[in-house]
Amino acid sequence: MKIIVDAMGGDNAPEAIVRGGVRAAKQFGEDVVLVGQEERLRAILKADGAEGAPHVSIVHAPDLVDMHDDPATVLRKKPESSMAVALKMVQKGEGDAIVSAGSTGALLAGATLFCKRIKGIRRGALAPVMPCAGGQVLLVDAGANTECTAEYLLQFAFMGSLYMRKIMGVEQPRVGLVNNGSEDTKGDPLRLEAYRLLKAAGDAGRLRFVGNVEGRDVPLGACDVAVCDGFAGNVMLKTIEGVAKFMSGELKQVFLRSAGTKLGYLLVKGGLDDFRGLFDQDKIGGAPFLGISCPVIKAHGSSNETAAMNAVRQAIEFCRSGLIAEIAGQVGFMTVG
Amino acid sequence: MKIIVDAMGGDNAPEAIVRGGVRAAKQFGEDVVLVGQEERLRAILKADGAEGAPHVSIVHAPDLVDMHDDPATVLRKKPESSMAVALKMVQKGEGDAIVSAGSTGALLAGATLFCKRIKGIRRGALAPVMPCAGGQVLLVDAGANTECTAEYLLQFAFMGSLYMRKIMGVEQPRVGLVNNGSEDTKGDPLRLEAYRLLKAAGDAGRLRFVGNVEGRDVPLGACDVAVCDGFAGNVMLKTIEGVAKFMSGELKQVFLRSAGTKLGYLLVKGGLDDFRGLFDQDKIGGAPFLGISCPVIKAHGSSNETAAMNAVRQAIEFCRSGLIAEIAGQVGFMTVG
Repeated sequence: MKIIVDAMGGDNAPEAIVRGGVRAAKQFGEDVVLVGQEERLRAILKADGAEGAPHVSIVHAPDLVDMHDDPATVLRKKPESSMAVALKMVQKGEGDAIVSAGSTGALLAGATLFCKRIKGIRRGALAPVMPCAGGQVLLVDAGANTECTAEYLLQFAFMGSLYMRKIMGVEQPRVGLVNNGSEDTKGDPLRLEAYRLLKAAGDAGRLRFVGNVEGRDVPLGACDVAVCDGFAGNVMLKTIEGVAKFMSGELKQVFLRSAGTKLGYLLVKGGLDDFRGLFDQDKIGGAPFLGISCPVIKAHGSSNETAAMNAVRQAIEFCRSGLIAEIAGQVGFMTVG
Repeated sequence: MKIIVDAMGGDNAPEAIVRGGVRAAKQFGEDVVLVGQEERLRAILKADGAEGAPHVSIVHAPDLVDMHDDPATVLRKKPESSMAVALKMVQKGEGDAIVSAGSTGALLAGATLFCKRIKGIRRGALAPVMPCAGGQVLLVDAGANTECTAEYLLQFAFMGSLYMRKIMGVEQPRVGLVNNGSEDTKGDPLRLEAYRLLKAAGDAGRLRFVGNVEGRDVPLGACDVAVCDGFAGNVMLKTIEGVAKFMSGELKQVFLRSAGTKLGYLLVKGGLDDFRGLFDQDKIGGAPFLGISCPVIKAHGSSNETAAMNAVRQAIEFCRSGLIAEIAGQVGFMTVG
């Protein structure tokens, strides 16, 4: 298996990405191809004494995608960027999956452009796994599609359900439709129609649809897959991050008040570290981009070495799972009209 | 001043609502009219030794709005319900404001039906004040309008800004547009058009528009007023509640691990109580429903006595603020085309 890594994408690239890739190659024994400015990448390997490490290779790409580029067009305009070169390698069969911590928009547009969607899938969807009470929940779509149809939401539900089953090991994932109330009459026309489609899929035994879920139900563990349009999904994902960060900051103040509270901190430090680890994105690695005909992992922009390694691990698990063939096999159940 | 209280709405009605109303009348010296089943209300007053308390009166309404009623039509079908009677009293000038912990949908529909919107305002909006880093943020609309136009969002921005200035004492409230990215090119057609309108209002010096805000920026204190359609706003509001509850539960586990962590708890207890108080809805009271020609306060459904008292306090502050006249005076700046 060969994982293609865009070594130049992300705030800490190329150093953290190279190091994470090298660690992953060593730990998992699969080939990792680092795509980027060859001299810089080679210098990092050299500095780390990792030149000639087994399973690690470099492919040169001189150009960079940056924040000022238009995500929709950058990969056509910069065909020699690390992200474009990496995607084209997968497209040509020179790799099995791609990992990038670069521009989300450019990666989604590029994956669709070069690697194509699975036949019958209307839109790719970003599907991060988030912590919740009692486990983890997949949020799909978390931002790839600002405007959606009910059919897209049905497809997100199937793809998310299959991901949670085949990769996260959840036997019968509970699928919830994110809505502004739990009653089945709630929502705008999009939600009402999506509810109807999901209910029918549930009744036919193809999905375990648990009905509408509200924003508060998702962190409280009401479902394993939370289905959403990309606008509200993006708002939800980022609100979770923001509240977690806000509360962690407030909690820190609680322990800084006095000598007594600082002693209290020492007594609960182990547990608090686990608590903070709940929302540690580095452990998660990245978010899969579902619906594309090859595994695509979007590592978060601030990925450090550990995050990069875990994103490569995720890509390997994605490849091994057979998820794409499974989605392709079930696409007939996800098509409307 | 006379505050009309729907004494039968909410999970803890009528007991908690009656007691909160009586406390508010005593503390703030304004008239409180309790609307509901007279015998039950009178029995509560009697049990509490509050019969004949100054500023407290009862108006009989035999019927109840319940969870199974259709919010859109219940007040026509049940004209003798406590909520309908309370709204009609305000409509007829027999009261200055209404407070209810009953069905949100019924209250919003009923307030619009009986009390009417301020002339020129297209839709009423639910506007809870939420805790955030460094203070509080008004989220508008948090669920009254599932589908919105850019003009609605412009009006929500003005009304929210005026509420924060006149009632919450924020001199120049920063208004942010909730979007799926901070760049000014982000969003669906609704957001792009709303951005244009808000930018123009900001450039004209009528609002302090700080641009697009992402979900994470809102809890982190990037704005004083977060403008949103009611669907995404509802998702955001409830996600905040859910994450806060999830994290509080996880934190509790940290302290329950061992004798040592329990000692640690004792050392930080005071600070932790303040921390938990951040998200204590009872202290906040309720959410104003903006755009109606009288003050309407939606107390949360699980309101206890303190929450009910604070909702009445909010209604009094709303009446005193002159906010409705101010909105009416600026409505010319909020109208498109």
